[in-house]
Amino acid sequence: MPHCVILYTPNIEAKTDMTALCRALADTMLAQFDESGKPVFPMGGTRVLAYPAAHFAVADGGIQGRAQGNDSGRIAGDPGDYAFVYLNIRMASGRSDATIKIAGNALLARTKAHFAPLLASSRIGITLQIDESPGQVFDGKLSSLHPLFQK
Amino acid sequence: MPHCVILYTPNIEAKTDMTALCRALADTMLAQFDESGKPVFPMGGTRVLAYPAAHFAVADGGIQGRAQGNDSGRIAGDPGDYAFVYLNIRMASGRSDATIKIAGNALLARTKAHFAPLLASSRIGITLQIDESPGQVFDGKLSSLHPLFQK
Amino acid sequence: MPHCVILYTPNIEAKTDMTALCRALADTMLAQFDESGKPVFPMGGTRVLAYPAAHFAVADGGIQGRAQGNDSGRIAGDPGDYAFVYLNIRMASGRSDATIKIAGNALLARTKAHFAPLLASSRIGITLQIDESPGQVFDGKLSSLHPLFQK
Repeated sequence: MPHCVILYTPNIEAKTDMTALCRALADTMLAQFDESGKPVFPMGGTRVLAYPAAHFAVADGGIQGRAQGNDSGRIAGDPGDYAFVYLNIRMASGRSDATIKIAGNALLARTKAHFAPLLASSRIGITLQIDESPGQVFDGKLSSLHPLFQK
Repeated sequence: MPHCVILYTPNIEAKTDMTALCRALADTMLAQFDESGKPVFPMGGTRVLAYPAAHFAVADGGIQGRAQGNDSGRIAGDPGDYAFVYLNIRMASGRSDATIKIAGNALLARTKAHFAPLLASSRIGITLQIDESPGQVFDGKLSSLHPLFQK
Repeated sequence: MPHCVILYTPNIEAKTDMTALCRALADTMLAQFDESGKPVFPMGGTRVLAYPAAHFAVADGGIQGRAQGNDSGRIAGDPGDYAFVYLNIRMASGRSDATIKIAGNALLARTKAHFAPLLASSRIGITLQIDESPGQVFDGKLSSLHPLFQK
Protein backbone atom coordinates (compact mmCIF):
# COMPACT_ATOMS: atom_id res chain seq x y z
CA MET A 1 0.00 0.00 0.00
CA PRO A 2 -0.66 2.30 -1.55
CA HIS A 3 -1.13 0.97 -5.00
CA CYS A 4 -2.61 2.41 -8.15
CA VAL A 5 -4.43 0.14 -10.60
CA ILE A 6 -5.15 1.47 -14.07
CA LEU A 7 -7.85 -0.17 -16.19
CA TYR A 8 -8.18 1.07 -19.77
CA THR A 9 -9.60 0.38 -23.18
CA PRO A 10 -7.02 -1.26 -25.46
CA ASN A 11 -7.67 1.18 -28.31
CA ILE A 12 -5.15 3.61 -26.76
CA GLU A 13 -2.34 1.07 -26.43
CA ALA A 14 -0.57 2.12 -29.62
CA LYS A 15 -1.18 5.82 -29.07
CA THR A 16 0.41 6.34 -25.67
CA ASP A 17 3.17 4.88 -23.51
CA MET A 18 1.44 3.30 -20.53
CA THR A 19 4.69 2.12 -18.93
CA ALA A 20 5.80 5.76 -18.92
CA LEU A 21 2.50 6.72 -17.26
CA CYS A 22 3.03 4.08 -14.55
CA ARG A 23 6.51 5.43 -13.86
CA ALA A 24 5.29 9.05 -13.89
CA LEU A 25 2.51 8.31 -11.42
CA ALA A 26 4.83 6.37 -9.10
CA ASP A 27 7.29 9.27 -9.20
CA THR A 28 4.45 11.70 -8.48
CA MET A 29 3.34 9.63 -5.50
CA LEU A 30 6.90 9.53 -4.20
CA ALA A 31 7.14 13.32 -4.54
CA GLN A 32 4.23 13.96 -2.13
CA PHE A 33 4.95 15.15 1.40
CA ASP A 34 2.49 15.93 4.19
CA GLU A 35 2.25 18.98 6.46
CA SER A 36 5.07 17.68 8.64
CA GLY A 37 7.38 16.97 5.72
CA LYS A 38 6.93 13.21 5.81
CA PRO A 39 6.42 11.24 2.59
CA VAL A 40 2.71 10.63 1.98
CA PHE A 41 3.44 7.25 0.39
CA PRO A 42 6.22 4.89 1.46
CA MET A 43 8.85 4.13 -1.18
CA GLY A 44 8.64 0.35 -0.85
CA GLY A 45 4.85 0.37 -0.90
CA THR A 46 4.33 2.49 -4.02
CA ARG A 47 3.16 0.41 -6.97
CA VAL A 48 1.33 1.13 -10.21
CA LEU A 49 -0.15 -1.63 -12.38
CA ALA A 50 -1.91 -1.07 -15.73
CA TYR A 51 -4.30 -3.41 -17.52
CA PRO A 52 -5.77 -3.02 -21.00
CA ALA A 53 -9.17 -4.71 -21.26
CA ALA A 54 -9.63 -7.64 -23.63
CA HIS A 55 -13.19 -6.51 -24.45
CA PHE A 56 -15.01 -3.25 -23.87
CA ALA A 57 -17.88 -0.91 -24.63
CA VAL A 58 -17.90 2.85 -24.00
CA ALA A 59 -21.02 5.06 -24.08
CA ASP A 60 -23.07 4.30 -27.20
CA GLY A 61 -20.01 3.02 -29.06
CA GLY A 62 -20.09 5.90 -31.48
CA ILE A 63 -23.65 6.08 -32.77
CA GLN A 64 -24.25 9.62 -31.59
CA GLY A 65 -20.78 10.69 -32.66
CA ARG A 66 -21.47 9.32 -36.13
CA ALA A 67 -24.74 11.22 -36.32
CA GLN A 68 -22.69 14.35 -35.69
CA GLY A 69 -20.22 13.55 -38.42
CA ASN A 70 -17.66 11.87 -36.13
CA ASP A 71 -16.30 8.94 -38.13
CA SER A 72 -16.09 6.71 -35.07
CA GLY A 73 -19.64 5.47 -35.63
CA ARG A 74 -20.36 2.09 -34.15
CA ILE A 75 -20.93 -0.83 -36.46
CA ALA A 76 -22.24 -4.21 -35.34
CA GLY A 77 -19.73 -6.08 -33.21
CA ASP A 78 -17.38 -3.09 -33.12
CA PRO A 79 -16.84 -1.68 -29.62
CA GLY A 80 -16.10 1.71 -31.17
CA ASP A 81 -13.10 3.92 -30.67
CA TYR A 82 -14.17 5.90 -27.66
CA ALA A 83 -11.56 5.40 -24.97
CA PHE A 84 -11.67 5.16 -21.19
CA VAL A 85 -8.99 5.14 -18.53
CA TYR A 86 -9.78 4.40 -14.90
CA LEU A 87 -7.15 5.01 -12.25
CA ASN A 88 -7.84 3.76 -8.73
CA ILE A 89 -5.52 4.35 -5.83
CA ARG A 90 -6.11 2.26 -2.76
CA MET A 91 -4.42 3.31 0.44
CA ALA A 92 -4.85 2.89 4.17
CA SER A 93 -6.92 5.50 5.99
CA GLY A 94 -5.31 8.09 8.24
CA ARG A 95 -4.04 10.80 5.91
CA SER A 96 -5.48 14.30 6.35
CA ASP A 97 -8.06 15.71 3.95
CA ALA A 98 -5.59 18.38 2.89
CA THR A 99 -2.89 15.82 2.14
CA ILE A 100 -5.28 13.67 0.15
CA LYS A 101 -6.48 16.65 -1.89
CA ILE A 102 -2.94 17.78 -2.70
CA ALA A 103 -1.83 14.27 -3.63
CA GLY A 104 -4.98 13.60 -5.67
CA ASN A 105 -4.63 16.86 -7.57
CA ALA A 106 -0.95 16.20 -8.27
CA LEU A 107 -1.77 12.74 -9.65
CA LEU A 108 -4.64 14.13 -11.73
CA ALA A 109 -2.41 16.91 -13.12
CA ARG A 110 0.28 14.38 -14.05
CA THR A 111 -2.35 12.18 -15.71
CA LYS A 112 -3.69 15.19 -17.63
CA ALA A 113 -0.20 16.06 -18.85
CA HIS A 114 0.34 12.49 -20.02
CA PHE A 115 -2.94 12.31 -21.90
CA ALA A 116 -3.00 15.88 -23.24
CA PRO A 117 -2.37 14.76 -26.84
CA LEU A 118 -5.10 12.09 -26.66
CA LEU A 119 -7.56 14.43 -24.95
CA ALA A 120 -7.04 16.87 -27.81
CA SER A 121 -7.15 14.38 -30.67
CA SER A 122 -9.67 11.72 -29.61
CA ARG A 123 -12.73 11.01 -27.49
CA ILE A 124 -11.48 9.79 -24.14
CA GLY A 125 -12.83 9.79 -20.59
CA ILE A 126 -10.45 9.58 -17.64
CA THR A 127 -11.43 9.05 -14.00
CA LEU A 128 -9.00 9.02 -11.07
CA GLN A 129 -10.28 8.00 -7.67
CA ILE A 130 -8.66 7.36 -4.30
CA ASP A 131 -10.18 4.88 -1.84
CA GLU A 132 -9.31 4.38 1.82
CA SER A 133 -9.48 0.56 1.88
CA PRO A 134 -13.18 0.40 2.74
CA GLY A 135 -14.48 -2.70 4.46
CA GLN A 136 -11.01 -4.10 4.97
CA VAL A 137 -10.98 -6.74 7.70
CA PHE A 138 -7.56 -8.36 7.18
CA ASP A 139 -4.24 -6.93 6.07
CA GLY A 140 -1.18 -9.15 5.66
CA LYS A 141 2.17 -8.21 4.21
CA LEU A 142 5.33 -9.99 3.10
CA SER A 143 8.26 -8.10 1.66
CA SER A 144 11.85 -8.35 0.67
CA LEU A 145 11.49 -4.91 -0.89
CA HIS A 146 10.72 -2.56 2.01
CA PRO A 147 13.97 -3.36 3.87
CA LEU A 148 15.92 -1.90 0.95
CA PHE A 149 14.46 1.52 1.74
CA GLN A 150 14.76 1.43 5.51
CA LYS A 151 17.71 2.56 7.52
CA MET B 1 -18.71 6.66 -13.62
CA PRO B 2 -20.44 4.37 -13.63
CA HIS B 3 -18.31 1.62 -14.95
CA CYS B 4 -18.69 -2.12 -15.05
CA VAL B 5 -15.62 -4.36 -14.79
CA ILE B 6 -15.99 -8.01 -15.75
CA LEU B 7 -13.43 -10.55 -14.48
CA TYR B 8 -13.75 -14.08 -15.83
CA THR B 9 -12.06 -17.42 -16.26
CA PRO B 10 -10.47 -17.72 -19.72
CA ASN B 11 -12.04 -21.13 -20.36
CA ILE B 12 -15.20 -19.41 -21.66
CA GLU B 13 -13.38 -17.15 -24.13
CA ALA B 14 -14.00 -19.39 -27.15
CA LYS B 15 -17.55 -20.25 -26.11
CA THR B 16 -19.10 -16.81 -25.84
CA ASP B 17 -18.72 -13.32 -27.31
CA MET B 18 -17.55 -11.11 -24.48
CA THR B 19 -17.40 -7.97 -26.63
CA ALA B 20 -21.08 -8.50 -27.37
CA LEU B 21 -21.75 -8.83 -23.63
CA CYS B 22 -19.93 -5.54 -22.97
CA ARG B 23 -22.04 -3.81 -25.59
CA ALA B 24 -25.27 -5.41 -24.32
CA LEU B 25 -24.59 -4.32 -20.75
CA ALA B 26 -23.68 -0.78 -21.79
CA ASP B 27 -26.90 -0.61 -23.81
CA THR B 28 -28.85 -1.95 -20.82
CA MET B 29 -27.31 0.68 -18.56
CA LEU B 30 -28.19 3.40 -21.05
CA ALA B 31 -31.79 2.14 -21.18
CA GLN B 32 -32.40 2.70 -17.46
CA PHE B 33 -34.45 5.66 -16.32
CA ASP B 34 -35.37 6.71 -12.79
CA GLU B 35 -38.74 7.68 -11.29
CA SER B 36 -38.53 11.15 -12.82
CA GLY B 37 -37.62 9.86 -16.27
CA LYS B 38 -33.96 10.84 -16.07
CA PRO B 39 -31.26 8.46 -17.29
CA VAL B 40 -29.84 6.45 -14.37
CA PHE B 41 -26.40 6.40 -15.97
CA PRO B 42 -24.91 9.23 -18.05
CA MET B 43 -24.08 8.38 -21.67
CA GLY B 44 -20.51 9.64 -21.56
CA GLY B 45 -19.79 7.90 -18.26
CA THR B 46 -21.01 4.43 -19.16
CA ARG B 47 -18.12 2.00 -19.69
CA VAL B 48 -17.75 -1.76 -19.59
CA LEU B 49 -14.36 -3.47 -19.49
CA ALA B 50 -13.81 -7.26 -19.53
CA TYR B 51 -10.70 -9.16 -18.43
CA PRO B 52 -10.02 -12.88 -18.79
CA ALA B 53 -7.70 -14.13 -16.04
CA ALA B 54 -4.28 -15.49 -16.96
CA HIS B 55 -4.51 -18.09 -14.18
CA PHE B 56 -7.40 -19.35 -12.10
CA ALA B 57 -8.92 -21.95 -9.81
CA VAL B 58 -12.64 -22.51 -9.23
CA ALA B 59 -14.15 -24.61 -6.41
CA ASP B 60 -12.31 -27.93 -6.17
CA GLY B 61 -11.27 -27.78 -9.81
CA GLY B 62 -13.49 -30.70 -10.71
CA ILE B 63 -12.67 -33.41 -8.19
CA GLN B 64 -16.20 -33.71 -6.85
CA GLY B 65 -17.68 -33.37 -10.28
CA ARG B 66 -15.49 -36.22 -11.48
CA ALA B 67 -16.62 -38.39 -8.56
CA GLN B 68 -20.15 -37.82 -9.80
CA GLY B 69 -19.35 -38.80 -13.35
CA ASN B 70 -18.72 -35.26 -14.59
CA ASP B 71 -15.80 -35.49 -16.99
CA SER B 72 -14.29 -32.18 -15.88
CA GLY B 73 -12.26 -33.92 -13.14
CA ARG B 74 -9.20 -32.02 -12.03
CA ILE B 75 -5.79 -33.39 -12.85
CA ALA B 76 -2.54 -32.09 -11.39
CA GLY B 77 -1.71 -28.62 -12.71
CA ASP B 78 -5.02 -28.33 -14.51
CA PRO B 79 -7.25 -25.54 -13.19
CA GLY B 80 -10.30 -27.47 -14.37
CA ASP B 81 -13.11 -26.33 -16.60
CA TYR B 82 -15.44 -24.83 -14.06
CA ALA B 83 -16.07 -21.26 -15.09
CA PHE B 84 -16.67 -18.02 -13.20
CA VAL B 85 -17.76 -14.56 -14.28
CA TYR B 86 -17.71 -11.63 -11.89
CA LEU B 87 -19.40 -8.38 -12.88
CA ASN B 88 -18.86 -5.34 -10.68
CA ILE B 89 -20.52 -2.01 -11.28
CA ARG B 90 -19.08 0.94 -9.43
CA MET B 91 -21.14 4.11 -9.33
CA ALA B 92 -21.48 7.20 -7.19
CA SER B 93 -23.99 7.07 -4.35
CA GLY B 94 -27.28 8.94 -4.51
CA ARG B 95 -29.58 6.74 -6.56
CA SER B 96 -32.76 5.48 -4.86
CA ASP B 97 -33.08 1.88 -3.66
CA ALA B 98 -35.87 1.31 -6.17
CA THR B 99 -33.77 2.62 -9.06
CA ILE B 100 -30.81 0.49 -8.04
CA LYS B 101 -32.97 -2.63 -7.80
CA ILE B 102 -34.54 -2.08 -11.20
CA ALA B 103 -31.18 -1.36 -12.84
CA GLY B 104 -29.49 -4.31 -11.10
CA ASN B 105 -32.25 -6.70 -12.11
CA ALA B 106 -32.15 -5.45 -15.70
CA LEU B 107 -28.38 -6.01 -15.88
CA LEU B 108 -28.71 -9.45 -14.27
CA ALA B 109 -31.47 -10.42 -16.70
CA ARG B 110 -29.36 -9.31 -19.67
CA THR B 111 -26.39 -11.24 -18.30
CA LYS B 112 -28.58 -14.33 -17.85
CA ALA B 113 -29.81 -14.08 -21.43
CA HIS B 114 -26.24 -13.79 -22.69
CA PHE B 115 -25.01 -16.80 -20.74
CA ALA B 116 -28.12 -18.99 -21.09
CA PRO B 117 -26.37 -21.45 -23.44
CA LEU B 118 -23.32 -21.75 -21.13
CA LEU B 119 -25.48 -22.05 -18.02
CA ALA B 120 -27.27 -24.95 -19.68
CA SER B 121 -24.23 -26.73 -21.09
CA SER B 122 -21.46 -26.18 -18.55
CA ARG B 123 -20.66 -25.53 -14.92
CA ILE B 124 -20.48 -21.78 -14.49
CA GLY B 125 -21.01 -19.36 -11.60
CA ILE B 126 -21.93 -15.73 -12.28
CA THR B 127 -22.05 -12.92 -9.73
CA LEU B 128 -23.15 -9.35 -10.45
CA GLN B 129 -22.67 -6.73 -7.77
CA ILE B 130 -23.13 -2.97 -7.62
CA ASP B 131 -21.01 -0.85 -5.26
CA GLU B 132 -21.53 2.79 -4.30
CA SER B 133 -17.87 3.86 -4.37
CA PRO B 134 -17.19 2.99 -0.73
CA GLY B 135 -14.36 4.79 1.04
CA GLN B 136 -13.81 7.16 -1.85
CA VAL B 137 -11.89 10.24 -0.73
CA PHE B 138 -10.89 11.78 -4.08
CA ASP B 139 -12.63 11.91 -7.42
CA GLY B 140 -11.01 13.54 -10.44
CA LYS B 141 -12.22 13.53 -14.01
CA LEU B 142 -10.87 14.52 -17.42
CA SER B 143 -12.92 14.06 -20.55
CA SER B 144 -13.13 14.87 -24.20
CA LEU B 145 -16.01 12.40 -24.42
CA HIS B 146 -18.76 13.85 -22.20
CA PRO B 147 -19.03 17.11 -24.20
CA LEU B 148 -20.14 15.05 -27.20
CA PHE B 149 -23.31 14.12 -25.33
CA GLN B 150 -24.13 17.48 -23.81
CA LYS B 151 -26.20 20.19 -25.39
CA MET C 1 -18.48 -15.14 -3.28
CA PRO C 2 -15.93 -15.25 -1.96
CA HIS C 3 -13.42 -14.63 -4.63
CA CYS C 4 -9.75 -13.82 -4.59
CA VAL C 5 -8.26 -11.59 -7.28
CA ILE C 6 -4.48 -11.51 -7.65
CA LEU C 7 -2.84 -8.57 -9.45
CA TYR C 8 0.91 -8.84 -10.04
CA THR C 9 3.87 -7.49 -11.94
CA PRO C 10 4.63 -9.64 -15.00
CA ASN C 11 8.33 -9.90 -14.15
CA ILE C 12 7.58 -12.89 -11.90
CA GLU C 13 5.63 -14.82 -14.54
CA ALA C 14 8.56 -17.04 -15.58
CA LYS C 15 9.82 -17.48 -12.02
CA THR C 16 6.78 -18.94 -10.32
CA ASP C 17 3.69 -21.01 -11.14
CA MET C 18 0.73 -18.72 -10.66
CA THR C 19 -1.81 -21.40 -11.63
CA ALA C 20 -0.43 -23.50 -8.79
CA LEU C 21 -0.83 -20.52 -6.43
CA CYS C 22 -4.47 -20.09 -7.50
CA ARG C 23 -5.13 -23.76 -6.80
CA ALA C 24 -3.27 -23.66 -3.46
CA LEU C 25 -5.25 -20.63 -2.28
CA ALA C 26 -8.57 -22.13 -3.35
CA ASP C 27 -7.67 -25.33 -1.49
CA THR C 28 -6.68 -23.27 1.56
CA MET C 29 -9.99 -21.42 1.47
CA LEU C 30 -11.86 -24.72 1.22
CA ALA C 31 -9.94 -26.05 4.22
CA GLN C 32 -11.19 -23.32 6.58
CA PHE C 33 -13.90 -24.11 9.12
CA ASP C 34 -15.52 -21.82 11.65
CA GLU C 35 -16.13 -22.32 15.41
CA SER C 36 -19.14 -24.50 14.70
CA GLY C 37 -17.34 -26.68 12.19
CA LYS C 38 -19.00 -25.17 9.14
CA PRO C 39 -16.96 -24.32 6.04
CA VAL C 40 -15.98 -20.64 6.06
CA PHE C 41 -16.22 -20.47 2.26
CA PRO C 42 -18.74 -22.38 0.14
CA MET C 43 -17.27 -24.84 -2.36
CA GLY C 44 -19.19 -23.54 -5.36
CA GLY C 45 -18.40 -19.93 -4.52
CA THR C 46 -14.64 -20.22 -4.11
CA ARG C 47 -12.76 -18.70 -7.02
CA VAL C 48 -9.25 -17.36 -7.54
CA LEU C 49 -8.29 -15.28 -10.60
CA ALA C 50 -4.77 -13.98 -11.32
CA TYR C 51 -3.79 -11.11 -13.64
CA PRO C 52 -0.28 -10.04 -14.65
CA ALA C 53 -0.15 -6.33 -15.44
CA ALA C 54 0.71 -5.19 -18.96
CA HIS C 55 2.62 -2.18 -17.59
CA PHE C 56 3.91 -1.34 -14.15
CA ALA C 57 6.16 0.68 -11.88
CA VAL C 58 7.27 -0.33 -8.38
CA ALA C 59 8.92 2.01 -5.84
CA ASP C 60 11.70 3.99 -7.53
CA GLY C 61 12.16 1.33 -10.19
CA GLY C 62 15.58 0.43 -8.88
CA ILE C 63 17.45 3.72 -8.56
CA GLN C 64 18.10 3.35 -4.86
CA GLY C 65 18.88 -0.33 -5.22
CA ARG C 66 21.42 0.53 -7.91
CA ALA C 67 23.03 3.10 -5.66
CA GLN C 68 23.51 0.31 -3.17
CA GLY C 69 25.08 -2.01 -5.69
CA ASN C 70 21.86 -3.85 -6.57
CA ASP C 71 22.02 -4.49 -10.31
CA SER C 72 18.33 -3.83 -10.79
CA GLY C 73 18.96 -0.12 -11.36
CA ARG C 74 16.31 1.62 -13.35
CA ILE C 75 17.10 2.88 -16.80
CA ALA C 76 14.86 5.17 -18.82
CA GLY C 77 11.69 3.41 -19.95
CA ASP C 78 12.50 0.32 -17.90
CA PRO C 79 9.95 -0.39 -15.17
CA GLY C 80 12.67 -2.16 -13.19
CA ASP C 81 12.66 -5.64 -11.75
CA TYR C 82 11.10 -4.99 -8.37
CA ALA C 83 8.03 -7.18 -8.09
CA PHE C 84 4.63 -6.77 -6.46
CA VAL C 85 1.79 -9.16 -5.81
CA TYR C 86 -1.56 -7.96 -4.52
CA LEU C 87 -4.12 -10.49 -3.32
CA ASN C 88 -7.62 -9.24 -2.55
CA ILE C 89 -10.35 -11.45 -1.17
CA ARG C 90 -13.85 -10.09 -1.36
CA MET C 91 -16.51 -11.82 0.69
CA ALA C 92 -19.89 -11.05 2.21
CA SER C 93 -19.93 -9.71 5.76
CA GLY C 94 -21.06 -11.85 8.67
CA ARG C 95 -18.05 -13.97 9.60
CA SER C 96 -16.60 -13.59 13.10
CA ASP C 97 -13.39 -11.67 13.73
CA ALA C 98 -11.75 -14.87 14.93
CA THR C 99 -12.75 -16.77 11.79
CA ILE C 100 -11.50 -13.99 9.55
CA LYS C 101 -8.16 -13.83 11.37
CA ILE C 102 -7.63 -17.58 11.15
CA ALA C 103 -8.58 -17.69 7.47
CA GLY C 104 -6.49 -14.62 6.64
CA ASN C 105 -3.45 -16.01 8.41
CA ALA C 106 -3.85 -19.38 6.69
CA LEU C 107 -4.00 -17.69 3.28
CA LEU C 108 -1.01 -15.48 4.11
CA ALA C 109 1.00 -18.49 5.30
CA ARG C 110 0.19 -20.39 2.11
CA THR C 111 1.16 -17.36 0.04
CA LYS C 112 4.42 -17.06 1.98
CA ALA C 113 5.22 -20.72 1.34
CA HIS C 114 4.55 -20.28 -2.36
CA PHE C 115 6.75 -17.22 -2.69
CA ALA C 116 9.52 -18.28 -0.28
CA PRO C 117 12.05 -18.78 -3.10
CA LEU C 118 11.24 -15.39 -4.68
CA LEU C 119 11.25 -13.60 -1.32
CA ALA C 120 14.73 -14.99 -0.74
CA SER C 121 16.17 -14.33 -4.20
CA SER C 122 14.54 -11.11 -5.37
CA ARG C 123 12.94 -7.84 -4.28
CA ILE C 124 9.23 -8.48 -3.99
CA GLY C 125 6.39 -6.95 -1.99
CA ILE C 126 3.25 -8.98 -1.28
CA THR C 127 0.01 -7.67 0.22
CA LEU C 128 -3.02 -9.80 1.06
CA GLN C 129 -6.22 -8.07 2.11
CA ILE C 130 -9.76 -9.22 2.81
CA ASP C 131 -12.71 -6.90 2.23
CA GLU C 132 -16.30 -7.37 3.36
CA SER C 133 -18.02 -6.10 0.19
CA PRO C 134 -18.15 -2.47 1.29
CA GLY C 135 -20.77 -0.23 -0.23
CA GLN C 136 -22.51 -3.11 -1.95
CA VAL C 137 -26.08 -2.21 -2.90
CA PHE C 138 -26.99 -5.04 -5.28
CA ASP C 139 -26.03 -8.70 -5.35
CA GLY C 140 -27.23 -11.01 -8.11
CA LYS C 141 -26.18 -14.58 -8.75
CA LEU C 142 -26.61 -17.16 -11.51
CA SER C 143 -25.07 -20.58 -11.24
CA SER C 144 -25.00 -24.02 -12.74
CA LEU C 145 -22.05 -24.78 -10.47
CA HIS C 146 -23.40 -24.53 -6.93
CA PRO C 147 -26.00 -27.29 -7.43
CA LEU C 148 -23.15 -29.76 -8.01
CA PHE C 149 -22.06 -29.29 -4.41
CA GLN C 150 -25.46 -29.32 -2.75
CA LYS C 151 -27.32 -32.33 -1.50
